[in-house]
Amino acid sequence: MSPSKRIGLPPGTIVYTGNKPVDKVCFTLMEYDECSFELIKSENFDVIKPYICRDEKKVYWLNIDGIQRTDILEEVGKYFQIHPLTLEDIANVNQRPKMEEYENYVYAVMKMIDVKENKILVEQLSLVLLKGITVTFQEDEEFDVFESIRSRIEQGKGRIRRMREDYLFYALMDTVVDTYFHVAEYISDKLEELEEEIFNEQTSGQIHDIYETKREILYIKKQLWPVRDMISSMVRTDHPLIGKNIRMYIRDIQDHMYRIIETIENERELTSSILEVYLSQNSHRMNEIMKVLTLVSSLFIPVTFVVGVYGMNFDYMPELRMKYGYFTVWAIMLGMIGLQIYLFRKKKWI
Amino acid sequence: MSPSKRIGLPPGTIVYTGNKPVDKVCFTLMEYDECSFELIKSENFDVIKPYICRDEKKVYWLNIDGIQRTDILEEVGKYFQIHPLTLEDIANVNQRPKMEEYENYVYAVMKMIDVKENKILVEQLSLVLLKGITVTFQEDEEFDVFESIRSRIEQGKGRIRRMREDYLFYALMDTVVDTYFHVAEYISDKLEELEEEIFNEQTSGQIHDIYETKREILYIKKQLWPVRDMISSMVRTDHPLIGKNIRMYIRDIQDHMYRIIETIENERELTSSILEVYLSQNSHRMNEIMKVLTLVSSLFIPVTFVVGVYGMNFDYMPELRMKYGYFTVWAIMLGMIGLQIYLFRKKKWI
Amino acid sequence: MSPSKRIGLPPGTIVYTGNKPVDKVCFTLMEYDECSFELIKSENFDVIKPYICRDEKKVYWLNIDGIQRTDILEEVGKYFQIHPLTLEDIANVNQRPKMEEYENYVYAVMKMIDVKENKILVEQLSLVLLKGITVTFQEDEEFDVFESIRSRIEQGKGRIRRMREDYLFYALMDTVVDTYFHVAEYISDKLEELEEEIFNEQTSGQIHDIYETKREILYIKKQLWPVRDMISSMVRTDHPLIGKNIRMYIRDIQDHMYRIIETIENERELTSSILEVYLSQNSHRMNEIMKVLTLVSSLFIPVTFVVGVYGMNFDYMPELRMKYGYFTVWAIMLGMIGLQIYLFRKKKWI
Amino acid sequence: MSPSKRIGLPPGTIVYTGNKPVDKVCFTLMEYDECSFELIKSENFDVIKPYICRDEKKVYWLNIDGIQRTDILEEVGKYFQIHPLTLEDIANVNQRPKMEEYENYVYAVMKMIDVKENKILVEQLSLVLLKGITVTFQEDEEFDVFESIRSRIEQGKGRIRRMREDYLFYALMDTVVDTYFHVAEYISDKLEELEEEIFNEQTSGQIHDIYETKREILYIKKQLWPVRDMISSMVRTDHPLIGKNIRMYIRDIQDHMYRIIETIENERELTSSILEVYLSQNSHRMNEIMKVLTLVSSLFIPVTFVVGVYGMNFDYMPELRMKYGYFTVWAIMLGMIGLQIYLFRKKKWI
Amino acid sequence: MSPSKRIGLPPGTIVYTGNKPVDKVCFTLMEYDECSFELIKSENFDVIKPYICRDEKKVYWLNIDGIQRTDILEEVGKYFQIHPLTLEDIANVNQRPKMEEYENYVYAVMKMIDVKENKILVEQLSLVLLKGITVTFQEDEEFDVFESIRSRIEQGKGRIRRMREDYLFYALMDTVVDTYFHVAEYISDKLEELEEEIFNEQTSGQIHDIYETKREILYIKKQLWPVRDMISSMVRTDHPLIGKNIRMYIRDIQDHMYRIIETIENERELTSSILEVYLSQNSHRMNEIMKVLTLVSSLFIPVTFVVGVYGMNFDYMPELRMKYGYFTVWAIMLGMIGLQIYLFRKKKWI
Repeated sequence: MSPSKRIGLPPGTIVYTGNKPVDKVCFTLMEYDECSFELIKSENFDVIKPYICRDEKKVYWLNIDGIQRTDILEEVGKYFQIHPLTLEDIANVNQRPKMEEYENYVYAVMKMIDVKENKILVEQLSLVLLKGITVTFQEDEEFDVFESIRSRIEQGKGRIRRMREDYLFYALMDTVVDTYFHVAEYISDKLEELEEEIFNEQTSGQIHDIYETKREILYIKKQLWPVRDMISSMVRTDHPLIGKNIRMYIRDIQDHMYRIIETIENERELTSSILEVYLSQNSHRMNEIMKVLTLVSSLFIPVTFVVGVYGMNFDYMPELRMKYGYFTVWAIMLGMIGLQIYLFRKKKWI
Repeated sequence: MSPSKRIGLPPGTIVYTGNKPVDKVCFTLMEYDECSFELIKSENFDVIKPYICRDEKKVYWLNIDGIQRTDILEEVGKYFQIHPLTLEDIANVNQRPKMEEYENYVYAVMKMIDVKENKILVEQLSLVLLKGITVTFQEDEEFDVFESIRSRIEQGKGRIRRMREDYLFYALMDTVVDTYFHVAEYISDKLEELEEEIFNEQTSGQIHDIYETKREILYIKKQLWPVRDMISSMVRTDHPLIGKNIRMYIRDIQDHMYRIIETIENERELTSSILEVYLSQNSHRMNEIMKVLTLVSSLFIPVTFVVGVYGMNFDYMPELRMKYGYFTVWAIMLGMIGLQIYLFRKKKWI
Repeated sequence: MSPSKRIGLPPGTIVYTGNKPVDKVCFTLMEYDECSFELIKSENFDVIKPYICRDEKKVYWLNIDGIQRTDILEEVGKYFQIHPLTLEDIANVNQRPKMEEYENYVYAVMKMIDVKENKILVEQLSLVLLKGITVTFQEDEEFDVFESIRSRIEQGKGRIRRMREDYLFYALMDTVVDTYFHVAEYISDKLEELEEEIFNEQTSGQIHDIYETKREILYIKKQLWPVRDMISSMVRTDHPLIGKNIRMYIRDIQDHMYRIIETIENERELTSSILEVYLSQNSHRMNEIMKVLTLVSSLFIPVTFVVGVYGMNFDYMPELRMKYGYFTVWAIMLGMIGLQIYLFRKKKWI
Repeated sequence: MSPSKRIGLPPGTIVYTGNKPVDKVCFTLMEYDECSFELIKSENFDVIKPYICRDEKKVYWLNIDGIQRTDILEEVGKYFQIHPLTLEDIANVNQRPKMEEYENYVYAVMKMIDVKENKILVEQLSLVLLKGITVTFQEDEEFDVFESIRSRIEQGKGRIRRMREDYLFYALMDTVVDTYFHVAEYISDKLEELEEEIFNEQTSGQIHDIYETKREILYIKKQLWPVRDMISSMVRTDHPLIGKNIRMYIRDIQDHMYRIIETIENERELTSSILEVYLSQNSHRMNEIMKVLTLVSSLFIPVTFVVGVYGMNFDYMPELRMKYGYFTVWAIMLGMIGLQIYLFRKKKWI
Repeated sequence: MSPSKRIGLPPGTIVYTGNKPVDKVCFTLMEYDECSFELIKSENFDVIKPYICRDEKKVYWLNIDGIQRTDILEEVGKYFQIHPLTLEDIANVNQRPKMEEYENYVYAVMKMIDVKENKILVEQLSLVLLKGITVTFQEDEEFDVFESIRSRIEQGKGRIRRMREDYLFYALMDTVVDTYFHVAEYISDKLEELEEEIFNEQTSGQIHDIYETKREILYIKKQLWPVRDMISSMVRTDHPLIGKNIRMYIRDIQDHMYRIIETIENERELTSSILEVYLSQNSHRMNEIMKVLTLVSSLFIPVTFVVGVYGMNFDYMPELRMKYGYFTVWAIMLGMIGLQIYLFRKKKWI
């Protein structure tokens, strides 16, 4: 997460700033139109090259796993005529989500966020939309949210095979945004659990959980808020590579983005409320505890004084000699206790 | 409430995302002009079809209950030439309120929210304004806020029978927005009750109620805030299907929307204030309890020590032999208590 | 305050939504120019009619008390050619402050708010500016803030008699806005009182007062914020009925409105601060109480144990037989107390 | 501070709303150009009149102390052809800072705020920029922030003598804004003091100081925020009396204004933080106190019970007859105390 | 930090407002193009002068350390035809970050912020972009963030040697902005440490640390927020000295600025959360302490009363004579304790 690696470097230097080790780069090229579909996979860019955009009527999707290898990144950049600043952004995994239009391509960068086994996974995705092809860049092969899109292309489901590369560009971003709902649900589930727990009993661990959730929400907010701006600017764009019929679909992503943001904003407020509930419950419980302490002390401390009085060893204590002294003392003490109980009842403490 | 059902599906796939089961679809067609009124009801779209827009001078309202049956939805969509993205939105009950203009129709989606037996009911309503007809889509027949409109059309009250389908479109939305006042009042009543309770006594259940109310307000906010934007864009629209004379009426809905939003915003602030009151009251009561404990302890613990001293069994304790020892001790103890009472009075504790 | 009365009614139905009963309507017509002044008062509109705008060079102000009688409202509306939607708004006392421009008139609605005997009074005022006449609508005759304007017109003070009906329209609104300062001062006084009280002593009633004040501020905010927008749009208007020379005066109201809003916003923050002070004071006092309890307990509980030891009745307790046992015990106990006092001093508790 | 004095008065009535008594008005006229400088002072406007703008090439600054005398104000207004609404604003010391452009002059009103002997002093300053002369209006002679400007003009330091009346107008406002830094520093000093105090010890007086500071900040905010808007509109103005070369200087004031506002906004947040620190410290101290109480009570209450047992006077109590009974009891009690100390250590309470 | 030094001075007076003493000014001139590089260093401006812009095809960077010597500043200003207002801003180290365009140059001022040995260092940097040369002004030689740029120019790394003076201007600002990440990380580290500490144990020193961190964040915010606006206006500028190809790079700084601001905003929220955690933990711990106190007191105070009863010395107390009186009392007391433990368990206190 540290951006320090880059400080002091000249702009335009392509440096990988993440921390996942990688040996090899993996290229996956899909070629399709309404009737045909082909998949080429290789670790060597030279193997892939001849297939790229060999048929103008077909749509191509090149996915590259392994942006750690900046030398290969540079090679790919040169082939597609991508600006060095863009390559630098692709390699820098601390990028703020944004869209940039260049003459010959549109560049978009955003985070893929998903939840697996109660852990939030994040990886940066760079998309470059060129004439006839959409190129995507990821860190490694393991984490990826595009399974459904791949199968839709392979099986020819939906309208994706009938559309061009800008629709693919849109469909990929749409899938990424849809996955954001997983995180929103993950947090929502966590909050519901916390809620229930806190209304039962308070433990110090709950404060930790609430704080942890707040951190996660802040982290997600930081990743998602810029996506909203990015999509807004995409709705307004008039870059020739993005067809007019695609705008309507992008407006759809915008709607989803708004919904996610409203959901997470609500979750943030709920987290604060849960902390307030925690404190209120604690304060209520403290009151209960203090009431018990005060009741017991108030009832027994005064009468203990009374019995102390008659435990003194003075030679001359007339009461001690009285016949019913003992019982009188009991009567007085019971009276004291009775009076106090009456007063506490009046105060609604018991 | 889970949007997960849709993740991974190609956009444009019509999927029902709610959880109300349904067997049959119910079509209700109203045909009216200033002088005539007719009602056709059927479970079969083919029965309804011939009546639709058979007379250009009349206004038609087709209400469809049962968006669960996506096959029939598609059929209806094809008949009215509705875009697949719109059909997808109609079937997806997690839609964010919005308005979309297409060449041949205007699409609006919003939530009907009402309160019945202290429960907030929510159902999605989709409205499609076409030339000559307004079509509405709902989940089921049970919950609906249009009773008053139906009777106004039937009985020819107000100006509705004298106006065209765009007025009907407006009138339906107006009714939905007016119902929102019910929820605002429901929450306002709840807060007043809570308020009164809390000033009497604090219980742990009240925290739960406050939290519950806050959740409800957050939920309603999420549903209503986008409606404001939607109506704002409707005020500015110049779609040919919405007549200029209707704009003035839509500005009226906008005013109502502002009032509801201001009311709910106020209720939100009041909820926070009520929690603050709860905590303040609790803290005040704690002070009271502690004062009692401190008074009792301070008065009796020192004198208990004194009587303890003369309860010791030392062979040589000169005071025990004095004639007025016992009474002297009483005097000293009363003096101690008197002094303390004086000090507490000065501190205004009693 | 309930808007429920209107839900389900067709728009344009004129319904009184307030709860002040009324039997008769009262018409008051003022006719004036720089030199002359006449006042006609009647309960019958037909008596008033012939006087209205009988002289084009004079200015007319018609005040109508009793919007409860919707039949007469309709009659008046017809006479002045007022749109049914406007009439509906005039009768509906839950209107949000707003200005609407029609071809032949300007309609403005706002709340008159004043304080009498520590109670906030609110009544809706509707103003209709027509060619040559300003018509105002109120609920009843009792509450009204126009005394000063009436006397200025009668006595010909200031420039009002030299100006036209748009100046009158402005002057009426100016008076209403000026009265808002009363409420701001009322709350400011209340806060100052609370402040002083709280720094002296905390009672549970103060929380109630703070909460009450917060409610009042929220209520006033809801009434006044829209007035700001309304006046802003009035500054920008170019309706022919509002002369250019009047704009400068309206900018003056705008300034006042800003000042009121800033004042109330400040009062809102102060209310929150006062609650914080309450809680801080409470917490400080709690600390003081606990210190006393802890001091007394710490000083006397250990020595009570000591005297308890020598109150035991064991046959063999060597200390009891020692000659100076008793005095040694006293010495030890005084030592214990002395040590504790020293420690507490070091901790700055005493 | 009460604006009530004005309510009910016709607009345009010139009424002094402050509360400083004054007998006489003081006129101070400065006449200067690059080479010459003259000062005329009088209590009579007629004495001053002949000097005003007698030489078109020179710059004039007329300062008037004593806006309480509204009759003289009116006379001055007539002489300079100032609009009655402006005169009304000059006399009304509760004016919101603003700038207004008239055909023949520019009117600006703002507050002079300074700190003397730990008290915030406020006085309203009205500036009227006319052709060849800048006129300033103040309440009285005592408080004034223009000493430095006067000496700069007299001694011909800086560029002021080389510039025209619009530069003077700017220079006066610049001095007023620069003085605002005094208040920001005064509050900053106060906060630093409070901070240090609170980290040492908490007293109830500190809450009072924090609250007082918050009030002062709110008050200053109310006075200064509108100044920002006023200067912004001055930057954009194109009134012929304000030369283009002056705009750059006004942008400079704007920068200062932003800095002051950011500083005060920061101070506001710090004040809240200091209160939080107060509460946290209090809560921490409470914890410490309660720990002591709990330790002492837990250690001695149980053993006091034990010695109480053997202080009972039953005829048959076998332990009392045992030889080492007394020492056994001591051993048990020390064991109990030892165990508790061990447990408290484990909980990190001691 | 005190801006008081300037108050009362005529605008345009060049006054150093910082507090670092300095004797001599240090000029460092770099001359370079793609192939050549030369460095001239002197304490005398006259030595430097002949080298400045002697070759139009080369790029020059003149760095001046020692803005304390305002006489030399004035000399430099005259040489480069810099406006007096700009010179004043360069010397005033309390400047708000801003950009100003003049006909012959662009002036930018911002803070260099870095962290060394856990201390935040701040120094003002002024940049003046002229035709062919970029001039930078600093306070002293010690603190500076440009090491990396110097070596890049010397060694000809990156594209800096191939670009003109506007790129240099950009590169310097880029380096300053990149250094801001150090501060963000420094605070992030501090917060993580605090977090961990607080979940372990609460000490009064932590409140101090949290408060200190909040102060630092507020201070940084005040320095950095204006930088955002400044860069935004630089993105939109069309000053001829800033080439079109540079705009894209400036957009890149803007992105970094947004990221820093979002990070610091998050850190601010986290700081508040950490304080909440502190208070919650404290309150939870208090509850724990009070539970122990209440348990011990409730268990032992009542039974101590019982044993006190039978320690009384009344002549006639029948129980004392019973054979199993002593054991009966023990049974009763154990019963009391057992009952209480059962009740506390039910309340989940133990």
